[in-house]
Amino acid sequence: MSAAGLAEARALDAADPLARFRDQFVIADQTVAYLDGNSLGRAPKRTVARLQHVVHHEWAGRLIHSWTDARTDWVGLPVRVGDRLAPLIGAAPGEVVVHDSTTVDLYQLVHAALDLRAGRQVIAVDAGEFPTDRYVIDGIAARTGHEVREGFDDLDDVAVAVRSVVDYRSAARVDVRAETARARDAGALVIWDLSHAVGSIELDLHAAGAQLAVGCTYKYLNGGPGSPAFTYVAADLQASLPQPIWGWFAQRRQFRMDTGFDPHPDIRRVLLGTPAVLSLSAADEGIALVAEAGMAAIAAKGSALTGFALRLCDQYGLHSSTPSDPARRGAHVAVHHPRAAELVPALAERGVVTDLRMPDIVRVGCSALTTRFVDVWRCLDVLAELTASSGDA
Amino acid sequence: MSAAGLAEARALDAADPLARFRDQFVIADQTVAYLDGNSLGRAPKRTVARLQHVVHHEWAGRLIHSWTDARTDWVGLPVRVGDRLAPLIGAAPGEVVVHDSTTVDLYQLVHAALDLRAGRQVIAVDAGEFPTDRYVIDGIAARTGHEVREGFDDLDDVAVAVRSVVDYRSAARVDVRAETARARDAGALVIWDLSHAVGSIELDLHAAGAQLAVGCTYKYLNGGPGSPAFTYVAADLQASLPQPIWGWFAQRRQFRMDTGFDPHPDIRRVLLGTPAVLSLSAADEGIALVAEAGMAAIAAKGSALTGFALRLCDQYGLHSSTPSDPARRGAHVAVHHPRAAELVPALAERGVVTDLRMPDIVRVGCSALTTRFVDVWRCLDVLAELTASSGDA
Repeated sequence: MSAAGLAEARALDAADPLARFRDQFVIADQTVAYLDGNSLGRAPKRTVARLQHVVHHEWAGRLIHSWTDARTDWVGLPVRVGDRLAPLIGAAPGEVVVHDSTTVDLYQLVHAALDLRAGRQVIAVDAGEFPTDRYVIDGIAARTGHEVREGFDDLDDVAVAVRSVVDYRSAARVDVRAETARARDAGALVIWDLSHAVGSIELDLHAAGAQLAVGCTYKYLNGGPGSPAFTYVAADLQASLPQPIWGWFAQRRQFRMDTGFDPHPDIRRVLLGTPAVLSLSAADEGIALVAEAGMAAIAAKGSALTGFALRLCDQYGLHSSTPSDPARRGAHVAVHHPRAAELVPALAERGVVTDLRMPDIVRVGCSALTTRFVDVWRCLDVLAELTASSGDA
Repeated sequence: MSAAGLAEARALDAADPLARFRDQFVIADQTVAYLDGNSLGRAPKRTVARLQHVVHHEWAGRLIHSWTDARTDWVGLPVRVGDRLAPLIGAAPGEVVVHDSTTVDLYQLVHAALDLRAGRQVIAVDAGEFPTDRYVIDGIAARTGHEVREGFDDLDDVAVAVRSVVDYRSAARVDVRAETARARDAGALVIWDLSHAVGSIELDLHAAGAQLAVGCTYKYLNGGPGSPAFTYVAADLQASLPQPIWGWFAQRRQFRMDTGFDPHPDIRRVLLGTPAVLSLSAADEGIALVAEAGMAAIAAKGSALTGFALRLCDQYGLHSSTPSDPARRGAHVAVHHPRAAELVPALAERGVVTDLRMPDIVRVGCSALTTRFVDVWRCLDVLAELTASSGDA
C-alpha cells in the first residue's frame, strides 16, 4: 500500500472544483470505488425527481395531452434533449436528436452516407471497433455488396468511414479535425461514434467540420441504463438526408396521418417510431447535469484522474496501453494483465468496480462528476496488491 | 341527457368483475372520463413502485452488475418481459421479445419476410393502414424495388402482407386464423400488427398459425409513453431468421466482443442495441397487470363497453363505422361526425378525453382495466349534446 499515493489522492480530491457534484447522485454505498461510469453512469438525484414528475404529472396526470401540450410536448422531446446535448459536442441547436439506440442510429447514418456516396463501394472501419458498430456495418455490407475494409490509411475509394473518437479499450483519441479534413479531401464521409467521448472530453464538431455522428447517453452522460442514443447531422446535410427506415416521427404533418411519407427537412428526419419518454426524460436530466458542470471542467478533471491512474500504474509496474499524452486519450485507462478475467471479479469483491475487456484489459473509467481520486488510488492499489500477491505483477 | 343510460351504466359498473382493477392505477382526477387508453394507457401504481426499485436498487444500488446479476439480469429483460406478454397473444415462451419501437420492429420483420420469400416482388398492405406501417413499407420498397399493393384480395404473387388485426380507426377486426391460412395457401407471409389488439381482445397466434407479428405496449398494456414494442416470431422460423440490422444484443456470446456476427438461433436474434431498461421495466408492470386480470375477462369487458357505446350511438343517432358484431371488432368505437375536429377538444373541455382521427372520427377507447361504463355513457351523452346543440347531429 502506497501511503504517499493516498495522501496525494486526498489532496487532489480536496482541491477538486467538481467534488460537490458527487452529492448530486444517489450513492448507496460511499465505500464502493465505482470505476465503471464509462459503461453505466451513476443515477443523478434530479433524475429520480424527474421520473416521479413524468409519471405522476405528465403520464398519470395529463395523460394523452402530454404528447402535444406546450408544457410537456413529448413529441418535441427528442429535439429538446438533443438541443441540450448539442453544446457538449460543439453542435448547434437543431443538429442533434436523442432517440433509439446507437445500433439503430448508426444503421440509419451508414445507409444515409452510402446513398450520399453512391459511386463508392467501401465502408472503412477500425479492426478493433466496438462490436455493435462492426456488426451493423457487416450487416449492411452483406445486403448491399459493399466491401468492409479495416483501417483508414487509404480513403480514396471509401464511401463512409465509421470511427470511434475514443477507443473503447485503450482510450486512444483520434484527432477529429485532422481526420475529418483528410476524409473530406478524399471524398469520403466519416460517421463519428462519440460513445466514449461525449461527456468525457471536449468536442467541437463544428470546428472539426464533422458531418455525421452518433453516440450514447448512458455512459458519461449518466442517462440511465439503456437510455436513448443520439444522432448528429450537420445542418447543411439535413434537408435531403436519405434514411432507410421511414417512421412517423419523421413525418412533417405527423398527426394528419397522411399516406405518403413526407419527412421534415431538418434533424427530425432521422426520427423513427414513438420515443421512449421515460428513458428519454432520464437522459435529459443526466445531460443537464453535465451541461451544468461544463465540459471544460469535466475534461480537465478526467485528464487529471487518468493522469493520476497512469502515474500509479508506473509506480506499481502495471502496464497500460492508454496514451500518456492527455490530449490523445479519453477518460478511462486500460490496464493490461494476463489474468484480467480473474482480477475484475477479485477487485469487485473488494468494493472496486471496473470492467473486463477481453482478453486482458481491466478497464478503469474516470467519470468526472462521480469518481474521486481516492477511488482511482484504491483501484490501482488493490490491483497492485492482487497482482503482486501471486508474484506475477 | 339520458337518465336511463346513466342508470344502466351504473348497474353495469356495479356488476363489473374487473372494477377493482381501476384502483390499481394512479388516477389524478376521478371526474375525468378517459377514453383514450387505446392511445396511451393509464399509469399502474405498481409501475411507480417498480421504477423506484429499478432506479434506487438496480441502477444506483447495484450499478453495472445489474446487467448480468441473476436477480436483475437486465440483459435478459427483453426476453423475460416477452415471456410475460406471450400468453396474452397465444404465443409460447421464447417467441416474443419486447424491444425498440413498432416502427423498427416492423422494419426488421418486413426485411426478414422479403428474404424468406425472395422470388416474390409484392408487399401487400391495407390502403388505410396506420401511417408508420405504410411509411416503413414504402421506405423498404423504395430501396428494394418491391411493389407495394393495397389490399389482400390476390396473394398469389405476394411476398409479405402487413396487416393490423384491429383497424386503428374503425376497430374492425380481421379473422387472423382464416387470413393466415389463406396467405399460407398462397405462399405469402403475413406480419400481423397487434398494436390495437394486444390487451384488448383474445388472440391465439399459435392456433391461428401466425408466423410473424409486432405490436405496441403503451396502449391497452399500459406500459407507459413510448414503452418498447414487441416482436413475435413463431418458434420454427427463428433459427435462421434473416435480419437487416445486426446488433450486439442479438450476438450469441455478446460480451466476448468478437468481431464476427454470430446471432442467437432463437428469438434474441431480432434484438438490436442496448435495451431501454427504465421504459422496458415499466412495460413489464403494465403487462403483468393485464396478465393478472386475464385476457378472457378483459376481452369480455371490452366487448361489453363497446357494445354499450354502440347502443348509445344508436339511441343518440350518432353514426359509427365500428362493427356491431362483437367478434368482429376491437375495444374502441369510431364515431363519425363532420365536425369531429371541433368535437374532440370540446369534449376534452368537459372532462371527456377521446381522440381525433382525421378527417371525421371521434375515437372512443374502452380500456377494460380503467374505463367505466359511466365514462362511456358520459362521452356519448356529451357528444350527443354537443352535436344536437348545433342542430347538425
